[in-house]
Amino acid sequence: MTDISAILRGEIRAGARLMRDIDDRRPAAMDALKALFPHTGRAYITGITGNPGAGKSTVVDAMIAYYRAAGERVGVVCVDPTSPFSGGAILGDRIRMQRHALDNDVFIRSLATRGYLGGLSRSTFDVVAVLDAMGYTRILVETVGVGQDEVDVMKAAHTTVVVTVPGLGDDIQAIKAGLLEIADVLVVNKSDREGADRTERDLLHMLDLRAHGERKEVEIVRTVATRGTAEGSGIAQLGAAIEAHRQRVWQGPAAESRAINRRSAHLAELLRALVSDRVEQALARRGGLADVAAAVEARKEDPWSAAEEILRQLPT
Amino acid sequence: MTDISAILRGEIRAGARLMRDIDDRRPAAMDALKALFPHTGRAYITGITGNPGAGKSTVVDAMIAYYRAAGERVGVVCVDPTSPFSGGAILGDRIRMQRHALDNDVFIRSLATRGYLGGLSRSTFDVVAVLDAMGYTRILVETVGVGQDEVDVMKAAHTTVVVTVPGLGDDIQAIKAGLLEIADVLVVNKSDREGADRTERDLLHMLDLRAHGERKEVEIVRTVATRGTAEGSGIAQLGAAIEAHRQRVWQGPAAESRAINRRSAHLAELLRALVSDRVEQALARRGGLADVAAAVEARKEDPWSAAEEILRQLPT
Repeated sequence: MTDISAILRGEIRAGARLMRDIDDRRPAAMDALKALFPHTGRAYITGITGNPGAGKSTVVDAMIAYYRAAGERVGVVCVDPTSPFSGGAILGDRIRMQRHALDNDVFIRSLATRGYLGGLSRSTFDVVAVLDAMGYTRILVETVGVGQDEVDVMKAAHTTVVVTVPGLGDDIQAIKAGLLEIADVLVVNKSDREGADRTERDLLHMLDLRAHGERKEVEIVRTVATRGTAEGSGIAQLGAAIEAHRQRVWQGPAAESRAINRRSAHLAELLRALVSDRVEQALARRGGLADVAAAVEARKEDPWSAAEEILRQLPT
Repeated sequence: MTDISAILRGEIRAGARLMRDIDDRRPAAMDALKALFPHTGRAYITGITGNPGAGKSTVVDAMIAYYRAAGERVGVVCVDPTSPFSGGAILGDRIRMQRHALDNDVFIRSLATRGYLGGLSRSTFDVVAVLDAMGYTRILVETVGVGQDEVDVMKAAHTTVVVTVPGLGDDIQAIKAGLLEIADVLVVNKSDREGADRTERDLLHMLDLRAHGERKEVEIVRTVATRGTAEGSGIAQLGAAIEAHRQRVWQGPAAESRAINRRSAHLAELLRALVSDRVEQALARRGGLADVAAAVEARKEDPWSAAEEILRQLPT
């Protein structure tokens, strides 16, 4: 049994155990999440994604320091679809964890694929809910890469920050078009490098190009983030830009429809994940996909009838 | 009702009508496919994919002429995930269709996304089954782009041909790594261009690099394809390379396990598509995803219980 009250008291070990259960797809995790739901909805979730090499993790590290200095409790979810390991073993996490090891008000959790398809976004939503229930009012969701997985993961965020740097190639396409579309705030990190003006100009130009009709308001912030300190130039401005987006969108007239969109994304991911678990189970009862395929190849049944039969056996 | 015997007689209009039903996801299409299944399994399916600009459609056009000269009936499925239009309106299809308009033994069909996710590969398998039942013994599946969709579509093929050209950039990565992994035959088209030797050397090098343990046997063929004729240098060699792959793999000891793998891919796509139709229906009964999300946002239920409830209502 999950110790719900321990999680609500913010006890690290209880929270970490539930996150492990989420990772392992234990049924107990679903029950715990249901019990925690009434205690969620207080956290503000910021997603941070962008080009590899743009210094995302340094920006996140500086943001942790920034929000800690403001007295907030900070939860961090670091998502790496390319890694098979969950639980905090990836990238700069260990370094960061060491730095914040004595700080009970920072909780850093890594998420990776466990071989299941498209499950990362679901896990992100679920882990964010746990952090929220634990009382982390400021949650940062960071991605390592920039693929479709990462774009999906960003659906969990209230504000999406896309980080880029000058000199990623002359090509304006250095920042992927898909990323630009989800950006609420754009960061030009390492902006003391040559070419920062041009990068900012290019970004503005791309935003204009992509504007079909009304142009989305996207603030561009320059940072020179330094690991572990909010003193890094521009981090306070980044914090202010996120706050401005929060007020504009999440306290504005469109807040309700935005909230429904965000929840729809969560439900869609959840449905996809649950239904694919059930299909797996139904297939297992028939000896697995390869056995069904072998029966079809032996012309014992046709593929369409076989698929329909499996769906009739779907566990409820 | 679908006219099964007309399809089995190879009547174009009956076949085209069924393909439209497949596109439109009509239940009648499933019934027709079940009825046709005993009459499938005779066709040999070759997939053609590769870099945009590599001249894929010219290669396919020359292959049509090559197989027609050998007296085979040729079905072509042209898959374009970026187009919302199915049915033959895309790209060079109209040109090709005109050329082959009087030839009843060539059937060209375009497939595009109709907004559904991951359904293209399912449609490809289904349309290929119709062409197979219609008596097209040689089926060419051509993709327009080179994304994950196209890689999935290639699962329908017995032999996958990946087309590239010299001078797509100095970068050896010009041919995407994912494509190289699925290639059974590699084509260096426009090989009269400068750099063909280097491209071939690079491809060999990449094949060696990617070989973990035993290297897959991949023949490299040089072509200078010319639209509408098999006289184009290299097309006969390409035909021979495809035939060699067929004999090596599909008439060799691994044929059965390969056939089961291919069928597993078909079943997996089918299950994914059917289950997502059912989830849509279950959601519609609850007023759609946004209504469920609104109920969750109003805290009337939690997302996990809502998702489970929807799955309990899944139509069988």
